[in-house]
Amino acid sequence: MEKKERKPVYYSEYLQLDKILNAQSPESQKEGIRADDEMLFIIIHQAYELWFKQILHELGIIRGIFSQSNIENNTPDIYNSVHRLKRICRILDVAVMQMGVLETMTPLDFLDFRDLLRPASGFQSIQFKMIEASLGLKYDQRHGKAYYLSQLTTADVDRVKTAESELSLLVLIDKWLTRMPFVNNLEYWGQEGTSDFWNKYREAYVSSLSEAEMAQVKVFDSIFINKGEYPEGRSFSVDAARNAMFIMLYRDQPLLQLPYELLSTLLEVDELMSMWRHRHIHMVQRTIGKRVGTGGSSGAEYLRGAADSHYIFKELSELTSFLLPRHLLPALPGSLVDDLGYRK
Amino acid sequence: MEKKERKPVYYSEYLQLDKILNAQSPESQKEGIRADDEMLFIIIHQAYELWFKQILHELGIIRGIFSQSNIENNTPDIYNSVHRLKRICRILDVAVMQMGVLETMTPLDFLDFRDLLRPASGFQSIQFKMIEASLGLKYDQRHGKAYYLSQLTTADVDRVKTAESELSLLVLIDKWLTRMPFVNNLEYWGQEGTSDFWNKYREAYVSSLSEAEMAQVKVFDSIFINKGEYPEGRSFSVDAARNAMFIMLYRDQPLLQLPYELLSTLLEVDELMSMWRHRHIHMVQRTIGKRVGTGGSSGAEYLRGAADSHYIFKELSELTSFLLPRHLLPALPGSLVDDLGYRK
Amino acid sequence: MEKKERKPVYYSEYLQLDKILNAQSPESQKEGIRADDEMLFIIIHQAYELWFKQILHELGIIRGIFSQSNIENNTPDIYNSVHRLKRICRILDVAVMQMGVLETMTPLDFLDFRDLLRPASGFQSIQFKMIEASLGLKYDQRHGKAYYLSQLTTADVDRVKTAESELSLLVLIDKWLTRMPFVNNLEYWGQEGTSDFWNKYREAYVSSLSEAEMAQVKVFDSIFINKGEYPEGRSFSVDAARNAMFIMLYRDQPLLQLPYELLSTLLEVDELMSMWRHRHIHMVQRTIGKRVGTGGSSGAEYLRGAADSHYIFKELSELTSFLLPRHLLPALPGSLVDDLGYRK
Amino acid sequence: MEKKERKPVYYSEYLQLDKILNAQSPESQKEGIRADDEMLFIIIHQAYELWFKQILHELGIIRGIFSQSNIENNTPDIYNSVHRLKRICRILDVAVMQMGVLETMTPLDFLDFRDLLRPASGFQSIQFKMIEASLGLKYDQRHGKAYYLSQLTTADVDRVKTAESELSLLVLIDKWLTRMPFVNNLEYWGQEGTSDFWNKYREAYVSSLSEAEMAQVKVFDSIFINKGEYPEGRSFSVDAARNAMFIMLYRDQPLLQLPYELLSTLLEVDELMSMWRHRHIHMVQRTIGKRVGTGGSSGAEYLRGAADSHYIFKELSELTSFLLPRHLLPALPGSLVDDLGYRK
Repeated sequence: MEKKERKPVYYSEYLQLDKILNAQSPESQKEGIRADDEMLFIIIHQAYELWFKQILHELGIIRGIFSQSNIENNTPDIYNSVHRLKRICRILDVAVMQMGVLETMTPLDFLDFRDLLRPASGFQSIQFKMIEASLGLKYDQRHGKAYYLSQLTTADVDRVKTAESELSLLVLIDKWLTRMPFVNNLEYWGQEGTSDFWNKYREAYVSSLSEAEMAQVKVFDSIFINKGEYPEGRSFSVDAARNAMFIMLYRDQPLLQLPYELLSTLLEVDELMSMWRHRHIHMVQRTIGKRVGTGGSSGAEYLRGAADSHYIFKELSELTSFLLPRHLLPALPGSLVDDLGYRK
Repeated sequence: MEKKERKPVYYSEYLQLDKILNAQSPESQKEGIRADDEMLFIIIHQAYELWFKQILHELGIIRGIFSQSNIENNTPDIYNSVHRLKRICRILDVAVMQMGVLETMTPLDFLDFRDLLRPASGFQSIQFKMIEASLGLKYDQRHGKAYYLSQLTTADVDRVKTAESELSLLVLIDKWLTRMPFVNNLEYWGQEGTSDFWNKYREAYVSSLSEAEMAQVKVFDSIFINKGEYPEGRSFSVDAARNAMFIMLYRDQPLLQLPYELLSTLLEVDELMSMWRHRHIHMVQRTIGKRVGTGGSSGAEYLRGAADSHYIFKELSELTSFLLPRHLLPALPGSLVDDLGYRK
Repeated sequence: MEKKERKPVYYSEYLQLDKILNAQSPESQKEGIRADDEMLFIIIHQAYELWFKQILHELGIIRGIFSQSNIENNTPDIYNSVHRLKRICRILDVAVMQMGVLETMTPLDFLDFRDLLRPASGFQSIQFKMIEASLGLKYDQRHGKAYYLSQLTTADVDRVKTAESELSLLVLIDKWLTRMPFVNNLEYWGQEGTSDFWNKYREAYVSSLSEAEMAQVKVFDSIFINKGEYPEGRSFSVDAARNAMFIMLYRDQPLLQLPYELLSTLLEVDELMSMWRHRHIHMVQRTIGKRVGTGGSSGAEYLRGAADSHYIFKELSELTSFLLPRHLLPALPGSLVDDLGYRK
Repeated sequence: MEKKERKPVYYSEYLQLDKILNAQSPESQKEGIRADDEMLFIIIHQAYELWFKQILHELGIIRGIFSQSNIENNTPDIYNSVHRLKRICRILDVAVMQMGVLETMTPLDFLDFRDLLRPASGFQSIQFKMIEASLGLKYDQRHGKAYYLSQLTTADVDRVKTAESELSLLVLIDKWLTRMPFVNNLEYWGQEGTSDFWNKYREAYVSSLSEAEMAQVKVFDSIFINKGEYPEGRSFSVDAARNAMFIMLYRDQPLLQLPYELLSTLLEVDELMSMWRHRHIHMVQRTIGKRVGTGGSSGAEYLRGAADSHYIFKELSELTSFLLPRHLLPALPGSLVDDLGYRK
């Protein structure tokens, strides 16, 4: 780094504050109407878009990491990925809390300028849709698909479609889990292979269930026992699901600690996205009630649909149902335990 | 206050820490099983119950205030009520955030002691049900009624029923709104009475609607125009609804400022109760997945039902749909404006 | 509002996202160095500057309100001011919490690009200095004055000086408190005037003090009794201080409720600004330790100085020391109580 | 687990709610004085004490882990410790935020019952002092030592002294860091030993310093170069300091990832304890101003002293000053890199 030869960097130029702080042109001002809260409305949405850009930046780095072929083992890259996913969670915490600032705008104050914004709508945030796509949401899973098409320009639809066509984090995690070697490596397990392991596990699992929970056995079998009956339309392959389960069960082994952190942080991302949508719903309801949104949307309805169905890593979350207490877990072969440890 | 004659008060006696700090007896310890997280599980639930007691304490004071016959005007009591409702909101903020501490307990760590707790269940928190009842939730509106009866002891059902039979905050607010004099006092409005006011308002409202929103007119009329068609089963009387609307529209008048704060804080309580349930749902899903709760409940299912239907002040929230921008509001008679002001 | 004739407004144009989302040019990228966290560093500072703009916007409106001559009485304007000050508090809450996102950047990750930023420094945020000036911080009260001059360009110093020369919120609040009529209006108090009131108060106050607190009496007298000995260099006039005290004591009277909210929200602003500086100090210490900041500052040292000395409304906060329990308060003349009430 | 034979467990018995919810006896009630906020005052302090118990529980487990002789390597135990330290951080987050609930009690409302509490004081919280002792605060380092002795009963002083005499987390971490093998294991480093490593590091470090920072070199040398001149009174041994530095620099190596998380979470604990004290100071100032506390303390003064001096892991935090950018770090010997990796 040639410190001396660089041009000095100043705060306001570095942050391009001339752009950032001159990008607020209230419509009410153009119309000569007094609407003191329109500035807040603009600025909070801009703050959200800045954070969305940052989330996309982090997701890009994480997807880059998982696109490499050689991260089967717990290299610095997985540590880095977990770190970045946790940062995304902290950003989402801010995003959720920030909604409280917008809630200081009363319905009456919003009405001062609301009509001037048609047909703009938060629904048109392309970056948010790209975040969803980048995590793994597919067009077919989007709540209100037709509506979605009608709201965006062709160029914007294309940007989202492109994002949807790339390898999402969900797909990359599935591939990484699928090729994880431990449960499937026959070397460790002898002739029986892992079917012996899962059969033993099943036995302990079934005996742990109450009467009311017996229906779960069929689901268990479809994932862990009968490869043939694997349910249609799942995001995770049977091997991925089994390896994810293995990680959750034996997360105390050194090599599985970070993979476990990774899986549980993915669930935290899903949870926080959902919290954000719920908080958003409440804000919308408080501000416009059952009115139709400026973009023509049924406001809260759409958000509720999305909040209930846009869980990307739902299949990971469902595996929790099949966990057993540590003292019932089958012991692992010694050679496997060795390989899950540090060299020293 | 005879300072010198009082017995000195010491921190740990004052707080009765001998009781508070000796009320944790992990079941796992009784069984000789190591389950390091059971202490957290006990303590966080105790912290919740302490906060529930405080919320009930505040609700008791607020209900006491609104049970007085003479609080039509904006006396110190309404100021006090708003203050206490805002405190309840700050407590609920803590309750929501506190869930994050419980989420540090992983599914596997919970399984270490989960089976020992049957059939205990958070569902058995009587204080929480009393809060709901105290706010205004009726037995018939409870999600999963039959289930609710089956989970509680007779004594506990009785406590909740008693709470449900008392004048709830919802009922008291309805009474207070119903007898509020301004819109209905003919003195201000001349021969036409307020029907003239609401007809003018209707005109402005209808012309503000988009095609897609026209269905709202019928609802508007049923509340503000045609007394006879008032919808069945509403919590608020027609006069209460109209007065609440009047407060929302003319909240800038001094006498209506605190009533407006009151109404919007009630909506904030509803919102935070819902946020708490949603956060609770996520925590349950992360900890037990689709397993049946220790109390036999379908866990997340019940909470979701409650989260979607237990809005106490929904009818207030729905009035937002009928608001108009300030510049379209009918002017108030001068004598009314005077009476909504301070004496000086 | 001629809805139909307006040009349609779209989300990304409305928010000028072309500017907002194209204002990030990492120095590391220009140098061909990989520094994945520089994007976060840029974006979080931009988010802060957006919020600073919003705070300045709100302060401008509030100062406009208090610049009017006729807000002695509790008009809608004071309600509006309190509302906006509370919004500033919610924004500061976000600002404090947002620091947690920056803390996800580890020292080592910052070092990847830190040297490239010289001599930029957060110290160069003009908007933050304008917020301080707008609230009431004078040049002479600034911690590290010389340093402050050396860090800014002449144009920036001028902007801050201009902000410092305008009527700050502190000055406007002092004027408003000074001309508040109640305590000083002889009509209410008869021949003795208010000296009788403050003498009675003094008696009750002195008898409430413990031995260790007796030194406070001199301060009390200098403010409430001996006009001549009023301490030098205070921001609030003697009348302002007495009226502020009167508001704090009789805040239950309708006309004083919002003034009380106003005063206590000003203290909350001070507190949150201080919390923000403390959180900032911790972040800086974690990220660069005792290193000198990129702008040449002694980093944490400066912030600590500012955190301890930049309390704008300190004199209001100190009045708390002189409060008495309600049951010891002198009764107010009946005519005054009437005038502090609503007309109806 | 013999589910069927266990006595059923019910929510309110399990949580001992008869104790928890019957441990609030307001003094004002005993005196027949109305003071509606005393309940809040009691309950929030009880909630704090519950959380303090939980923090002590977690610290006990962590100290148990580090008291074992065989945790040099990155075993499940370190993972567990990091997890528990992060939980302590989440609890402290709640503790900080919870202060906001107490701040809803106005000075005047506190005065309704404040005099009844003498000489109780939050200063008498033994659990909080035990947390400080358990982390590593020594009697000699306590701000206001004499004061501390005068406030507590002999029995309570004994409890704190006992806690201070046990192996604190600080001492245990020092021991663990001291015996960490990598930097000091000559096998990896050849004849020169690590002095070669630190000399190379010094060279890069010195050339990275600006003129103003040159004073730091002496401190650097005292820790990393001249064993003899090691500063008096440090908590960490020279080997511990060097190994901590090594962990911070090469945290991307698998075996050092969790140790790095451990060190940075210790700093987070220090930061949050400080945040809590600062928030506490603000609350006290807002509630009693410059009045002397009920226990006779100079209230805010004491807290400020503690907030500024009770950083337990300060020496770790100061190491940050000596970090270098990754591209300037000396390469590690290949055999060492191997041993810092996983077996597989």
